[in-house]
Amino acid sequence: MVDIATRVYNHKWKIDPIIRSLIDTDFYKLLMCQSVFRNKPDTHVEFSLINRSRNIRLADVIDEGELREQLDHIRSLSLSRGESTWLRGNMFYGKRQMFRPDFMEWFENFRLPPYHLEKRDGQYELTFEGRWPEVMLWEIPALSVLMELRGRAVLNAMDRFELQVLYARAMTKLWEKVELLRPEPDLRIADFGTRRRHSFLWQDWCVRAMREGLGDRFVGTSNCLIAMRRELEAIGTNAHELPMVYSALTDTDEDLRQAPYRVLADWHEEHEGNLRIILPDTYGSDGFLKEAPDWLAGWTGIRIDSGDPASGAETAIAWWKERGEDPRQKLVIFSDGLDVDKMLELQARFRGRVRVSFGWGTLLTNDFRGLVAEDALAPFSLVCKAVSADGRPTVKLSDNPNKAMGPADEVARYKRVFDVGIQKPRAVVV
Amino acid sequence: MVDIATRVYNHKWKIDPIIRSLIDTDFYKLLMCQSVFRNKPDTHVEFSLINRSRNIRLADVIDEGELREQLDHIRSLSLSRGESTWLRGNMFYGKRQMFRPDFMEWFENFRLPPYHLEKRDGQYELTFEGRWPEVMLWEIPALSVLMELRGRAVLNAMDRFELQVLYARAMTKLWEKVELLRPEPDLRIADFGTRRRHSFLWQDWCVRAMREGLGDRFVGTSNCLIAMRRELEAIGTNAHELPMVYSALTDTDEDLRQAPYRVLADWHEEHEGNLRIILPDTYGSDGFLKEAPDWLAGWTGIRIDSGDPASGAETAIAWWKERGEDPRQKLVIFSDGLDVDKMLELQARFRGRVRVSFGWGTLLTNDFRGLVAEDALAPFSLVCKAVSADGRPTVKLSDNPNKAMGPADEVARYKRVFDVGIQKPRAVVV
Repeated sequence: MVDIATRVYNHKWKIDPIIRSLIDTDFYKLLMCQSVFRNKPDTHVEFSLINRSRNIRLADVIDEGELREQLDHIRSLSLSRGESTWLRGNMFYGKRQMFRPDFMEWFENFRLPPYHLEKRDGQYELTFEGRWPEVMLWEIPALSVLMELRGRAVLNAMDRFELQVLYARAMTKLWEKVELLRPEPDLRIADFGTRRRHSFLWQDWCVRAMREGLGDRFVGTSNCLIAMRRELEAIGTNAHELPMVYSALTDTDEDLRQAPYRVLADWHEEHEGNLRIILPDTYGSDGFLKEAPDWLAGWTGIRIDSGDPASGAETAIAWWKERGEDPRQKLVIFSDGLDVDKMLELQARFRGRVRVSFGWGTLLTNDFRGLVAEDALAPFSLVCKAVSADGRPTVKLSDNPNKAMGPADEVARYKRVFDVGIQKPRAVVV
Repeated sequence: MVDIATRVYNHKWKIDPIIRSLIDTDFYKLLMCQSVFRNKPDTHVEFSLINRSRNIRLADVIDEGELREQLDHIRSLSLSRGESTWLRGNMFYGKRQMFRPDFMEWFENFRLPPYHLEKRDGQYELTFEGRWPEVMLWEIPALSVLMELRGRAVLNAMDRFELQVLYARAMTKLWEKVELLRPEPDLRIADFGTRRRHSFLWQDWCVRAMREGLGDRFVGTSNCLIAMRRELEAIGTNAHELPMVYSALTDTDEDLRQAPYRVLADWHEEHEGNLRIILPDTYGSDGFLKEAPDWLAGWTGIRIDSGDPASGAETAIAWWKERGEDPRQKLVIFSDGLDVDKMLELQARFRGRVRVSFGWGTLLTNDFRGLVAEDALAPFSLVCKAVSADGRPTVKLSDNPNKAMGPADEVARYKRVFDVGIQKPRAVVV
């Protein structure tokens, strides 16, 4: 019995929108947006898409017209009544009214600002310019649109049967991962996979699978829309864009050296408990911790997002001990390129020494490696970063030189100011 | 958008029938039925279900009421107009009007005869008695109903998500098999998996997958309904029930010794080409070939359905040579408990020496091994056999003593008459 209504409904979409909600984004974007909205509302920033996987020529794969349609559609979105109610009324990290009324009023009237799109050398130059709180909300939808359009280009050549087998295999692959995680009693894993997901529906399925397989050990998702619909915790704190923009705005080396701490001082004022998570690697974790003010050692935890994760955690544990803190009360969140083996290894290594949590991203929501010819659905390394603030370039060093960003002379200056020595390069998979 | 009509439609079935068509059966049953309809229409037979996997207590797993509903539903089926048209008009094995008008008229008015069902020792005693051409058509639907009801009992305890993962994994498993077969250029594989399939829909999917993956190297299916709907070749020739019943009807040892050849003499009259396939193992292949009349060596091929398949094929090749036939013109059909490794091994061993074809059964259409707890969906060894003819017990020896059937004294007599020596027992998986 063919359901003609469903079929007609499916066909009458002029486009099949990838992003259908402003809160189909990462929770930390909203937290940071509120912070920026209060502390730096008028800072003028530029965000830019950067494809670190140059061999994937996105402009050859993705049709420009389709990309524009998707981006235009995103610009037409505004917060729905139900979404607003959820943001205003839901408890996040144990706190009601996480989002202040002034921020919510602004957000309810918010539309994403214009974008600039050009093709160059087989890549898309996609940039967003304007006031920081507005521009920053482009990051996640821009990334997920490009990821999904690239996937759709591959899927378009497949017939219905091939698609069925593809998704059966992808489900099996994910379920095998869940089965490997299952015996581990003390896991805490969250979905951090919005930005480089295969698709919205697939991310939603992954979240469902994690919940079914791990129960409460799956602690939530960074995706607000999925958190709302599936009644899960929305997870996330803050990211590199805060220290990057704060730093770009400084005038002197000394000012620059303090900028990352000022970010956290502002955060300290706004948030407590599990939202007080240090992200130390923007300009090298070792130097950051060494020079950190004592009040930072009182924070709940640290997020390790580059470099060797075990070393990063060891450094943090040593630092806490040095500052008279008990690491067993602290939380280490690993979030860089994780897959099952790495998580189990880290879990085993730090069991009983520190609380451990995982933000599992791309290899949760987009592990289509090996499933189609020429690995055309394998995830790749796409980011969307603040590249300038009030006309000054931003810099990111991280604990992996392959993740560094910014003009060469500025990178050199930052390395000097933050006393970053020789760093070990690590392959950036996703 | 919930499709209410579909939902209501799905719920209004009093039962969800497993068998919905009289031709949801193996093609060779219809060929044999026509032969029996001509040659032995009034023979009175009894068929009985035999669960060779005694550890699976079917009567504990399957509700008697549900089983009766399914069997009663099968008794209500009659040939539809389209099915009749297909049987009358389709080309089978290169021949039109394979089914004679008198047989078709009879079949168009056919309903399955009554069944007898009792519980004993945790098993069902399910028997069918009556005229041979009528009773014999119970075999395949009876087996597939029991297989599927046992599966449903397990599936009933699973929620929608678990079911989705289950079928994703089963699809992945099958597709991996297809991928392993794909590189092999000269395969000829048919689906022989109706009787012990997981379910009708699953068998249909397996057929679809084989066709997609192997193209013309997937030569067809034994299932008439699927062959009709998917426009594939219907595959099959004849089975043990013919020599078993012919043999049971004999009065003397000498008469018995000739019975298996009389079966094939009748078949010889009716069929040619690829339908002339010897099934030699009913009372031991070695003796059967040694004593066979010369005209049998002129037949197209042989089906190896028990014993060590490679030895069986070697014996046949040697026999053809001895009788002055060129084995490279002959066809060996393997059909006993096959899976991918075994098929690839046999294919490699006999390449260039004889034409090879595979009838892939249970491990094509029901390989749910390892997919649920306690392996509760693993296939098991269920058969439905003629146990008596005109009041005399039937006997089957086969090339594997674990597959032997019949009263002990009769088995002993048959072994003597057919000069069957010591046989090597082999595990019966499916």
